[in-house]
Amino acid sequence: MKFWSNITKSLTPYVPGEQLNETDIVKLNTNENPFPPSPKVLESIQDAIGSQLKKYPDPESTKLKDAIGDFYKIESENVFVGNGSDEVLAHVFMAFFKDKKLYFPNITYSFYPVYCGLYEIDYQPISLNYKFQMETEDYLGLDGNIIFPNPNAPTGIEVELSTIEEILIKNPDNLVVVDEAYVDFGGKSAVELIGKYKNLLIVQTFSKSRSLAGMRVGFAIGDTELIEGLVRVKDSFNSYPLDRLAQAAGEAAIKDREYFEYTCSEIIKNREWTVAELEKRGIEVLPSTANFIFAKVENAENIYAELKSRKVLVRYFKKPLINSYLRISIGTKEEMEKLIKNIDQIMGV
Amino acid sequence: MKFWSNITKSLTPYVPGEQLNETDIVKLNTNENPFPPSPKVLESIQDAIGSQLKKYPDPESTKLKDAIGDFYKIESENVFVGNGSDEVLAHVFMAFFKDKKLYFPNITYSFYPVYCGLYEIDYQPISLNYKFQMETEDYLGLDGNIIFPNPNAPTGIEVELSTIEEILIKNPDNLVVVDEAYVDFGGKSAVELIGKYKNLLIVQTFSKSRSLAGMRVGFAIGDTELIEGLVRVKDSFNSYPLDRLAQAAGEAAIKDREYFEYTCSEIIKNREWTVAELEKRGIEVLPSTANFIFAKVENAENIYAELKSRKVLVRYFKKPLINSYLRISIGTKEEMEKLIKNIDQIMGV
Repeated sequence: MKFWSNITKSLTPYVPGEQLNETDIVKLNTNENPFPPSPKVLESIQDAIGSQLKKYPDPESTKLKDAIGDFYKIESENVFVGNGSDEVLAHVFMAFFKDKKLYFPNITYSFYPVYCGLYEIDYQPISLNYKFQMETEDYLGLDGNIIFPNPNAPTGIEVELSTIEEILIKNPDNLVVVDEAYVDFGGKSAVELIGKYKNLLIVQTFSKSRSLAGMRVGFAIGDTELIEGLVRVKDSFNSYPLDRLAQAAGEAAIKDREYFEYTCSEIIKNREWTVAELEKRGIEVLPSTANFIFAKVENAENIYAELKSRKVLVRYFKKPLINSYLRISIGTKEEMEKLIKNIDQIMGV
Repeated sequence: MKFWSNITKSLTPYVPGEQLNETDIVKLNTNENPFPPSPKVLESIQDAIGSQLKKYPDPESTKLKDAIGDFYKIESENVFVGNGSDEVLAHVFMAFFKDKKLYFPNITYSFYPVYCGLYEIDYQPISLNYKFQMETEDYLGLDGNIIFPNPNAPTGIEVELSTIEEILIKNPDNLVVVDEAYVDFGGKSAVELIGKYKNLLIVQTFSKSRSLAGMRVGFAIGDTELIEGLVRVKDSFNSYPLDRLAQAAGEAAIKDREYFEYTCSEIIKNREWTVAELEKRGIEVLPSTANFIFAKVENAENIYAELKSRKVLVRYFKKPLINSYLRISIGTKEEMEKLIKNIDQIMGV
């Protein structure tokens, strides 16, 4: 490690969920969408292949930003795009969080403390209450910036928009970043608050509700000054983060509103069905508006391993407070039926 | 700029060459390859579209790293891949350059000082000599890390491998990064020194010699400890920097050695032709082993503008020492003929 910088030595990198390539596996561990991308996405990629792959892509991803703007009825100057929302988040931490303390829930997306390690950001986790909810008063009048997912991960629990508004009002000098990776499965986006609050930044992804985890497209929405800050960091890191095919795929995906609404509603139906089935079996499930659920099971680690040996892959976090839970992504109806069948077999029902 | 971190305020971002979308333009400004990617790349992308774009890509880009390893007859554990060599370079700066002074030539890839700004790295440019060459003795026994492109940009001038070896030997405690973005057009790669020197890291790209600027694939080759350092930073930034289609494209591109060798040799031929034509007209051209040339012309800024108005786009850097030069990418024979014809018209020949 002779040539490693001190930061490199000190890092505890993020560990993504396992990416098994076996096709016969029921993969419910990384919150991917069980539906393929819109057929229009595939057409759009086909067209773009015929374009000039030898030429650099548009460094600004202009058409993609325009399409995102159209979808949310905002200006494209309020939109920033990146190589997945993980890259967008990384740039957010660098652009805005370096000089103050950062607050986020103690149970949340486990990449946040990793970014803090990378950029030497001082952070303070705020404990959720016994129901895994954010206590609003804990987030009012803080002396630092704030980030939280809504709905939260890995719990699936949503914060009301009125609460977010209260947090924004009571933190006028702090940036409040709402990570809406999972908002499209029944949650309510804070996009309608953009324009009203200059201290609000929203981060979203195409990996979940738009079935494009394989293409790496994420974005942020906020006041133009925030977007400019992100562009400054991006243009000091990598001018062309989205390749030609990713830009084409993203643009087509967000333009196909009908397919998006259909697939999201199917996933919501499958979630409700799965929750009902688990509850019938006495398994407690946290109230979720995400495309995953967080289910409390006895011997969670064993159940995870048993399910894996039966080719049903869910996610288990061996961490305090959540080590008796399994995070289960919502797949197709058939996949969820297989999950339930296997749980029954494991539990000896 | 209320919410910008101090670093964000202080940044001077990199400005990439113009990306004009007009199809009738002769685009010789960003060193792209005039040939399309190998037909096998297009087939490979086609196959990958049928794969599961809804699923995350392989976070390790295993097959791509294996293919790069095969090409260079090294182990894939000596290979790191990223979203274009710009991302790879950014991670290099973070992983290895934070704690010491960094040295690079005063005329070089203009992204280096930008990365230094982003990561607060102290750097010291070393002046090239009057022939735009690195003076070997200036790079021996330094008290900091070293990075330089070989061949250099925007000059196209190559450093001998024996010189690189001398620099490596005389800087045993410093990391020496050789940025070989342009090495495949007649230069000699330092890959053969990997294994012999643990302080050597090589960075390359698929954007130039493999015609994939539009797909964003870059890589680094070095000792496993260096690769591990880069992986730590990457996994603290973005787990999945290469999407499924970029991985497929890169793998197919590096496997098609015949197409690669053919297109590189054609570009070398076109470069030799262009240099000869310019020299016939009394225009001095620096000796180049890159896919671009650096030509000294009177009133360079005017000639740049005149060429642009005639739909021939080259690159002009309005900077001390190089503001009487034009950097001209090597295109097809037809494109270079158009360039010469237009220069003749502008110069009134």
